[in-house]
Amino acid sequence: MRFQRIGVYGVGHFGYALLRHLADKCERAIDEPFELLAYDRNDEVRQGLREHGRHPHYDTDKPTPACVTIVDDPETLLEALDLLLLCVTSDSAREVASEAARRLEGRPDPPAFLNTAKALDSRSGQPLSRVVLPLLAEAGVRPQYAALSGGTIAADMLRNQPLGATVACADADRREALRRLLSSPSLWIEPSDDVLGVELAGAFKNVISICAGMAEGMGFAYGVETHLISRLAGEIGGFCVEELGASPETFSISSQCWGNDMWMSCTGPTRNRELGRLIGSGRTLQEAIEEMTRRRQTVEGVATIHAMAPLFERFPDSLPLLRVARRVMLEHQSPQVLFEALTHA
Amino acid sequence: MRFQRIGVYGVGHFGYALLRHLADKCERAIDEPFELLAYDRNDEVRQGLREHGRHPHYDTDKPTPACVTIVDDPETLLEALDLLLLCVTSDSAREVASEAARRLEGRPDPPAFLNTAKALDSRSGQPLSRVVLPLLAEAGVRPQYAALSGGTIAADMLRNQPLGATVACADADRREALRRLLSSPSLWIEPSDDVLGVELAGAFKNVISICAGMAEGMGFAYGVETHLISRLAGEIGGFCVEELGASPETFSISSQCWGNDMWMSCTGPTRNRELGRLIGSGRTLQEAIEEMTRRRQTVEGVATIHAMAPLFERFPDSLPLLRVARRVMLEHQSPQVLFEALTHA
Repeated sequence: MRFQRIGVYGVGHFGYALLRHLADKCERAIDEPFELLAYDRNDEVRQGLREHGRHPHYDTDKPTPACVTIVDDPETLLEALDLLLLCVTSDSAREVASEAARRLEGRPDPPAFLNTAKALDSRSGQPLSRVVLPLLAEAGVRPQYAALSGGTIAADMLRNQPLGATVACADADRREALRRLLSSPSLWIEPSDDVLGVELAGAFKNVISICAGMAEGMGFAYGVETHLISRLAGEIGGFCVEELGASPETFSISSQCWGNDMWMSCTGPTRNRELGRLIGSGRTLQEAIEEMTRRRQTVEGVATIHAMAPLFERFPDSLPLLRVARRVMLEHQSPQVLFEALTHA
Repeated sequence: MRFQRIGVYGVGHFGYALLRHLADKCERAIDEPFELLAYDRNDEVRQGLREHGRHPHYDTDKPTPACVTIVDDPETLLEALDLLLLCVTSDSAREVASEAARRLEGRPDPPAFLNTAKALDSRSGQPLSRVVLPLLAEAGVRPQYAALSGGTIAADMLRNQPLGATVACADADRREALRRLLSSPSLWIEPSDDVLGVELAGAFKNVISICAGMAEGMGFAYGVETHLISRLAGEIGGFCVEELGASPETFSISSQCWGNDMWMSCTGPTRNRELGRLIGSGRTLQEAIEEMTRRRQTVEGVATIHAMAPLFERFPDSLPLLRVARRVMLEHQSPQVLFEALTHA
């Protein structure tokens, strides 16, 4: 199979990067042509892309790709799609899923959903597939579901850097169709059938990244950071495999949504890491969040820390290091206790 | 069992860091006391430590630990030891093993050897255990052998940072004795029975580190580096497990000699990475080596690149990405081909 009508829902930084990536492919896809539509709830974004031929915020020097049709409402977007790329924040995923459920109600052949948000649902602590799919199912809509996760920062994608990402989908035909659709000289796609694991990896990496930043904030050597990252990665990966049923491959060193993305988030110039650096240098979590808010930067990992609460309750003997890290953040313990735990575990 | 007479052979930067680490433990080890001896072939080092009470080059503001006995010849060192810590470069390991073979000839209870060098033997391309042990066996000396490898830079150890390392030994009693001996609030020890795998990990990581530096030298985004590192790590780990019989755990993300040390070597301020950066920014391998030599820096990974030749011949269909990287270095291909291979593989 192959996808022929593809819609991008949400043209923020990452949505736009993915849209341009697909447009490049669309223009060269002589054997496998497809239509490309996009919708954003922000009028300014839609008008910018359509009337002014530019995104109002990102890569503003480049024209909107000719093959992209900007639509004005979700209904038109969803109408005849066979693939919906959900490029909204995890906070909006619930709302967009409810909206899609209304639009698609009773449709026997709904489009496949490819979700790109990397966080747990902040209300339930669940991976997003376990929020989005039940909302759709209530309206009798049962789409194939896929997750995209990897070392794919929007700015890097827009520069056509050779990056790597994982696409997870339980259905083998759609998985292969997505792999072909997204692969290019600037994107290597690793297929996976482990949707749950890929979602968990994308969420948990943010918390390890905060911890890595703490090491820097405390003034520790880089070797302490890599020690901490490797230990937390092992602890969390083991937990997700043994207790939550994820695949070991998803949490391996070569996994694009873990070995690649987790390490990039931890040691690259990311917001999660910066938040951790602020905590390591003496601020409370609340003070660090306020500082990041002043810089107009939302930090995804904070929601994940809170969203993990049900997991910690359900598995009281698991995740000892992560539990210490969480206490540092939520109970204002000194970050020093995390680094003491490293050699006492 | 426990070790009671421990000797450090080679008091360079890492040897001195390990010596001080053990001296700290020695002074506090009320329940498990041990004697600590050290030898270095350099007169200046021995005299400095003994007569002037300082190492002549490293941490020169700190006195030689009181519990350390500096000896003047290898014979005295080897005489009654039950554990020898080999802290010499991989190039010297062969020579020191031959010397030890002469000194220990016919001794039924030779000391256990703990090797700390991380490289393949430059003559044979073999891991060091496969060079050291046969040389000893020729003299009828059959010691227990262990390898120490991890994210333990000498300068960080001397600052008592909480680091992590793997100790590999086939013998369970000695493995546990080594774990207890080396563990401290500033060193977490992960025990392993996979000596070969730990040796391979320590050698191969240097080559990945050179490749990571190339990405920076070429001006690629950090996400390209982490993509490349994760892919090479997966390729090499898979090869070592499937073709050479290493344990999967040794090449896991939480392994201290791989997940920790490999990533630190790749993304920290290391010599291997710097050599790669020079190559990525347009120099040939030879020019890059000359530049590093001008800076008085030996780059371990260079020997490993050459030492890999027999492996590439023996397994002609394996290690496709690493093979491309090797061609870039040895056949002066443009580093660009390595990054093209990333998304075409």
